[in-house]
Amino acid sequence: MILVRQDTSPEDIEGMVISEAIVTSRGGMTSHAAVVARGMGTPATVGVNGLQVDYKNGIATIAGTELQEGDWLSVDGTNGNLYLGKIQTNDSKVNDDLSTILDWSKQEGNLGVYANADTPADFAQALKFGADGIGLTRTEHMFFKPERLLEMRRLIIAEDAEERKAPLEELLQMQQGDFYELFRLSEGRSVTIRLLDPPLHEFLPHDAREIAKVSDQLGIDPDYLARRVDALKEINPMLGHRGDRLAVTFPDIYEMQVRAIIGAALELHDQGLEIQPHIMIPLTGSKAEMSWVRGIVVNQVESLFSQQGIRLKYTVGTMMEIPRACLTADKVAEVSDFFSFGTNDLTQLTYGFSRDDVGSFMPKYIEKGILKADPFQTVDVDGVGELMKMAVEKGRFTKGDLPIGVCGEIGGDPKSIEFFEAINVSYVSCSPYRVPVARLAAAQAKIKMSKKKDVLANYVKS
Amino acid sequence: MILVRQDTSPEDIEGMVISEAIVTSRGGMTSHAAVVARGMGTPATVGVNGLQVDYKNGIATIAGTELQEGDWLSVDGTNGNLYLGKIQTNDSKVNDDLSTILDWSKQEGNLGVYANADTPADFAQALKFGADGIGLTRTEHMFFKPERLLEMRRLIIAEDAEERKAPLEELLQMQQGDFYELFRLSEGRSVTIRLLDPPLHEFLPHDAREIAKVSDQLGIDPDYLARRVDALKEINPMLGHRGDRLAVTFPDIYEMQVRAIIGAALELHDQGLEIQPHIMIPLTGSKAEMSWVRGIVVNQVESLFSQQGIRLKYTVGTMMEIPRACLTADKVAEVSDFFSFGTNDLTQLTYGFSRDDVGSFMPKYIEKGILKADPFQTVDVDGVGELMKMAVEKGRFTKGDLPIGVCGEIGGDPKSIEFFEAINVSYVSCSPYRVPVARLAAAQAKIKMSKKKDVLANYVKS
Repeated sequence: MILVRQDTSPEDIEGMVISEAIVTSRGGMTSHAAVVARGMGTPATVGVNGLQVDYKNGIATIAGTELQEGDWLSVDGTNGNLYLGKIQTNDSKVNDDLSTILDWSKQEGNLGVYANADTPADFAQALKFGADGIGLTRTEHMFFKPERLLEMRRLIIAEDAEERKAPLEELLQMQQGDFYELFRLSEGRSVTIRLLDPPLHEFLPHDAREIAKVSDQLGIDPDYLARRVDALKEINPMLGHRGDRLAVTFPDIYEMQVRAIIGAALELHDQGLEIQPHIMIPLTGSKAEMSWVRGIVVNQVESLFSQQGIRLKYTVGTMMEIPRACLTADKVAEVSDFFSFGTNDLTQLTYGFSRDDVGSFMPKYIEKGILKADPFQTVDVDGVGELMKMAVEKGRFTKGDLPIGVCGEIGGDPKSIEFFEAINVSYVSCSPYRVPVARLAAAQAKIKMSKKKDVLANYVKS
Repeated sequence: MILVRQDTSPEDIEGMVISEAIVTSRGGMTSHAAVVARGMGTPATVGVNGLQVDYKNGIATIAGTELQEGDWLSVDGTNGNLYLGKIQTNDSKVNDDLSTILDWSKQEGNLGVYANADTPADFAQALKFGADGIGLTRTEHMFFKPERLLEMRRLIIAEDAEERKAPLEELLQMQQGDFYELFRLSEGRSVTIRLLDPPLHEFLPHDAREIAKVSDQLGIDPDYLARRVDALKEINPMLGHRGDRLAVTFPDIYEMQVRAIIGAALELHDQGLEIQPHIMIPLTGSKAEMSWVRGIVVNQVESLFSQQGIRLKYTVGTMMEIPRACLTADKVAEVSDFFSFGTNDLTQLTYGFSRDDVGSFMPKYIEKGILKADPFQTVDVDGVGELMKMAVEKGRFTKGDLPIGVCGEIGGDPKSIEFFEAINVSYVSCSPYRVPVARLAAAQAKIKMSKKKDVLANYVKS
């Protein structure tokens, strides 16, 4: 089954999971469809010019050819080609030769290679490819299963903290189960969990029919729900009320997530498995903000520890994805145990490019040579890279041993990995299927860098 | 007559011009309603919590009080208060004492003080307040008069460059007339004109009724227009297809604007008034981009000069509003005759804050002390200021005498002006009504800085 759409959004996740391939008319390398498909190892071709989808009649038209529901289409996600009809395919496997190369690479490389994994299935796949652990779990993807989405919606439309208590309690149970599974699979490897990141309106229904259905499910007035949906709408959601801004206005959501993370780690401690959870705050812009949110997190952790009379090691770090955080990284490091560059958002903000909207002009930029490459695919050394370098230097000025990772899409890009090695990043994290590529690239980058160092050493000796 | 709305957008400009005050339920210091009202000297209160507007029945409800169309309401734009009923008011005037202070300030200050002016009326007002010229003309505001909007829409929905020719020719005539008036009023003072900045969808109708009306005016199929409107929609318009990205995909729009600017200057040259137009490119992110767009501009200018056998002096500079441009300012300066900081967009991108959407969380940030002040009102020295300082240093490293201005809202803010003086900005540009404040602040900043220098001089002597 192939999902053919204009574009996808988080609420399509269940449909995406059961699709064998995904095709969209909008988007690029880092649009929702591409990122999610890559994470699941599902072939996807996005940004197909000339694809029209007629949802009502179940017809897709591609370059003049009309496809009905049920027609065969084959998708090559590597080069983006679409083929009419059914083409024979084989699954890729990790064979002994590849395992040997990956072992050598691990011995040679400096950079840790972690996986972006939101589900036990993702994580298991990443471990097969030799991932060192999880560098990024996006907790929001856990909220899109139908029964959870309902609780999440109940939470969002609640009038006050009191009304939020019941759905928060439900979500706590579910999230704790998710984290338990990831921690159990980790067998003590690092697992870094990012607290809720997207704006709340992403969880709400958008059109009148959906609003009617959901208000029925929740037993509320559809007009009231429509007003809530309208009130939460944003003109530029990427720059809106999301990330740790949600914690500043609704601290109870992050508090619930922290209780679920620590609760799961304590369960496993009882069973004899030592977990050190890494809790990651998204969208931090300043030391004051990080410090405030860290306070919320630490309070919850400490209260659980004293309730149970057990203490575990844990860290609280921050995404580095807002230019201002990079510019003031020496201050931010004072209240952060680690940094992890979110290169997708950092690139969006450094360029002023919306990754969902660049399709209308970026091809012309590449064609005319104004951009040498898509900065969402390979790090832009002069601009985004300059901010990253600054953040590494300032962060390590404050804390010499600060762990610094990269968990955006380019964490798995070989050319970018060479740059990360050069500026002394500690690890990268990428989708499971890119782990082997990243591992090899990390070793190559290390060898290249040490050769450069040798040249200098020889020069000094002569 | 008072305009009461949820928020305003560029297509409301005609209604805003004839309103004596503007009240909106959404937005903040730099939202559309606030910026436009400030420019026109119209009292405005924006972001009124608890204001509901029922457009269909012409009823506004504020904190439980229902107002009908025609009811009296008084607006204090300085403190944001609203008063039921009619309060007696007096216009503010420039008296002799104020003139004297402004003259002294002009003699003392280092910073040039220019106005953001889009119309002859704005400019005349600014000149009364002693502005040195125009630092920013936003050409898009000229496209919202009804007969022009129609041509602009014809332009946007055109299928190809050939179909765009006729509306471009119409717009050329109208724009040339606008620029002629501004240049004539300038009497040779500097006038800086920014080429088209907003995304094209801002000029199109949004709802079905408007689409029907406009398709009728343009004599086209409403379904076709609806599809065009839909195709141009963006998820994050602030980060989308706008600014000089429009020039890369549709160079003919900037070409038309350049011909109108140079055409107007040549007309005045014939009449004995020497104009040196300053042409400003918005949203530049790199040297390659600026260089490409500069090529488009210079080609048009030179072709007009050779047609007429006359040469005028002119400059082509860039807005500095994309973090990446600041980070690579040494390169960008190689192809720019001046820089002008667009602090609104630069602040949006450095913080990852949409100025239209911050209302939902910024009050909490201020309340909890996470933000000391609204960075759209007063420069954020540690973050945005750091990028500005870097851009000034890198730009002047390439060109020691590079003129560098600030034309965002904070160009008129006294505290920010002190910082601009300290980092060696050359001029500020602000709305006409803030010119006297900026002039005084510039003199105070200069005196404060030279006192600091004197302390050092004395210290060296002793």
